[in-house]
Amino acid sequence: MASVPLNSRTDAILKRLVRRQADAPIRKVLAKSRPEDVAAAMEHLSPPQQRRLYGLIEEGEFAGEVMAELSDDAVRQITREMDQDSIVDLLEHMEPDDATDVVHVLPDELRMRVIAEMEGDQEHADALELLSWPSDSAGGIMSPLMFKMHGTATCGNAIATLQDRHEELESVFYLYITDDVDTLLGVVSMRQLLTHPANTPLVSVMTREVIAVGPRDDQEEVARYVARYDLLAVPVVDEGRKLLGIVTVDDVIDVIREEAAEDMLLMAGVHQDVQEMAGSPLQLARHRGGWLLATAAGGIMAEIITSAYAGGELNYEVLAGFIPVVMGMGGNVGIQSTTIAVRGLATGHVQLGGALAFVLREVQVGVLLGVVYGFLLGLYGFITGWPDPYVGITVGVSVVIAISLGSLLGSGLPVLLARMGQDPAVATGPFVTTGVDILGILVYFQVATLLVGAS
Amino acid sequence: MASVPLNSRTDAILKRLVRRQADAPIRKVLAKSRPEDVAAAMEHLSPPQQRRLYGLIEEGEFAGEVMAELSDDAVRQITREMDQDSIVDLLEHMEPDDATDVVHVLPDELRMRVIAEMEGDQEHADALELLSWPSDSAGGIMSPLMFKMHGTATCGNAIATLQDRHEELESVFYLYITDDVDTLLGVVSMRQLLTHPANTPLVSVMTREVIAVGPRDDQEEVARYVARYDLLAVPVVDEGRKLLGIVTVDDVIDVIREEAAEDMLLMAGVHQDVQEMAGSPLQLARHRGGWLLATAAGGIMAEIITSAYAGGELNYEVLAGFIPVVMGMGGNVGIQSTTIAVRGLATGHVQLGGALAFVLREVQVGVLLGVVYGFLLGLYGFITGWPDPYVGITVGVSVVIAISLGSLLGSGLPVLLARMGQDPAVATGPFVTTGVDILGILVYFQVATLLVGAS
Repeated sequence: MASVPLNSRTDAILKRLVRRQADAPIRKVLAKSRPEDVAAAMEHLSPPQQRRLYGLIEEGEFAGEVMAELSDDAVRQITREMDQDSIVDLLEHMEPDDATDVVHVLPDELRMRVIAEMEGDQEHADALELLSWPSDSAGGIMSPLMFKMHGTATCGNAIATLQDRHEELESVFYLYITDDVDTLLGVVSMRQLLTHPANTPLVSVMTREVIAVGPRDDQEEVARYVARYDLLAVPVVDEGRKLLGIVTVDDVIDVIREEAAEDMLLMAGVHQDVQEMAGSPLQLARHRGGWLLATAAGGIMAEIITSAYAGGELNYEVLAGFIPVVMGMGGNVGIQSTTIAVRGLATGHVQLGGALAFVLREVQVGVLLGVVYGFLLGLYGFITGWPDPYVGITVGVSVVIAISLGSLLGSGLPVLLARMGQDPAVATGPFVTTGVDILGILVYFQVATLLVGAS
Repeated sequence: MASVPLNSRTDAILKRLVRRQADAPIRKVLAKSRPEDVAAAMEHLSPPQQRRLYGLIEEGEFAGEVMAELSDDAVRQITREMDQDSIVDLLEHMEPDDATDVVHVLPDELRMRVIAEMEGDQEHADALELLSWPSDSAGGIMSPLMFKMHGTATCGNAIATLQDRHEELESVFYLYITDDVDTLLGVVSMRQLLTHPANTPLVSVMTREVIAVGPRDDQEEVARYVARYDLLAVPVVDEGRKLLGIVTVDDVIDVIREEAAEDMLLMAGVHQDVQEMAGSPLQLARHRGGWLLATAAGGIMAEIITSAYAGGELNYEVLAGFIPVVMGMGGNVGIQSTTIAVRGLATGHVQLGGALAFVLREVQVGVLLGVVYGFLLGLYGFITGWPDPYVGITVGVSVVIAISLGSLLGSGLPVLLARMGQDPAVATGPFVTTGVDILGILVYFQVATLLVGAS
């Protein structure tokens, strides 16, 4: 039995050979590699290297399979220097849903020309239809290639069809049963086909309760269905339950991985593509610098608040030293609550219907943490601030309030964004920490001023 | 065609009925629900409610299916008040790999007794064997139930076996071909079985290049294979390529979801179970309070540093106001880099072999961001600090250094943890922000002191 090459080895070998521009050995490695491994290796190369490596792959199915596995950014880099005819040729070697993904990232003008050229091609008319759905919807990720038969057929008919069209129906998971106008009636598994006599009508074998999604359903919603019910594929149907396509489990895995990464990166205020981008540090900095503007503006606001309290009757020298701990505690609890909220909304652990209870629970946790750490840090402030007793009280009270605010903003902001139909992850991290910083410092000096005034 | 009840509706209905203690209507809803939806509803209930609802489910396969879909915490709550016999009876209605998961969370003493009782049961001897592998390894998540045949059999034999044992082989994806001592020789898909004449020997149809994993391989590694090669199941083999079990795609989806959530929560210093835990706010606070100790200690250290510079020749009043912005900028860039590093290490975008290049690129990005924001904030500091020119320079230089440090610590710490064989996500968030805070403040006052001394 042939041993399976470890993917990281293919990566390393290809990378080294591309750097040495050793075309002949590269061709040899390519001939023995899986397209998935070549695509993975490509992600670690610079755009010119990507184009060089891709140029060495023979035109045809393998090239299409590699392209299907690449990130949007790599597709963009590689197709940039391909002419229209090469692109059309490439697309014809790809499955319709994968081809659609490539067409999606082409520059507008080239996309139009490619679509115009392909419109005559009957086989790819379906692929172009897919373009009409948003790319993160069920319609956008579905494949129009599926195994469907009319309700009047038998198990034997189905097996004969599978034998005739075995090239096209390469990855078949289920057989869908439809009526004259393509309405979805039921579903039959491959195992059911195998275990019934050939003359059994499909309608008497099929499961009638089919879990289906609409073409406009969000891909995350589709992923949740597949994950919950352990499906291999889920049919996409319109309002009249007309069968439009299927979303398969391998695409769902990609969606789950993408969405998890997207949530984490968005939360930190990093544009999703940054991770995939093999761009220059300057490009990366430009992508990431945007959200930092909010942090910088917040910092300036904190400075304005702080300086307003300087030179007054407060023991400013001692008080200023505790700004970092008040900010740090509030910020970290804020990030904890934000993370739990964003992840919970994504997995369904937190539902919008019960969101108020969730925020309330987070605030309770925040108040508890605030009281414990407020007491400890207040005690330290009491000792440090001696003989000014108000420093310790100010630190203690401010830590309680900052941590409570952190849990409230951290859990509340994502829920609020979700309610407004926005992605709850969008830069919630920087916003929450900046918000907690400003409010925390305001509370801190205000409490100190009140205490000094009262004494 | 029967319509499929929306999962969130089953959730809401069951929750309402459990709260009203309406046992008869609950039974009615249960009879019409899918086990996955009942399990999902259960996750939103309190432990006593979970036990009440589970008690209303009739013993048997459905109860086993619900149990198989529950989180570890819910399993723990529900089994807590079940006696040994009920648990053994329940386990006998579950598939071996799911049963193993339940046995895993039982208290030590009960687990021993359950295992002792089940040892006589031949059918579950396999399940107990699974217990010997770590729960997050391929061995820990594999199922011993698989469809395998000897190399001498034909496609017809395979179909006949499938028909005979169709109960047991409920979710079959591939047929594995083995020799006399169970060595894995190849794999045949269901479609291949269907499309070859009955008398074709399996060895002439099978694919010999099988992607397989070892029982000790990390579940994340297994998930990466399944995701990259679009597999429905991956065989687990020992060093001699003896077939031990299979990991199926539905389990891989759970792994990917779990690991993504785990990474995010760990990064924020939140224990993973917190999200699933329906515990009291006090329990939750105890779970989350631990890592905050590092933040509090860091805050105290920042206070000590700050106070050491008070009362000297520095314009402390003006300088103190800029502490928040130096900390905030460094901390947020740190979190960005940490997130990119943790996510990259998980997806394979960042590999340990190329980690140095990754850290270097992050630092380059950090320096660029630092220069831009250092200039802007320095300018603001120059105006605010007037007539002390060193304030603006201090702020500018410190922002550059704090942001650069943030990107270095943020990208370097997860890589370092991974190198040491640790989870790169463990509380990197709090550690990075706290580290950047302390170093940032130290740099800030040190720069100011140097500038004042030089003027």
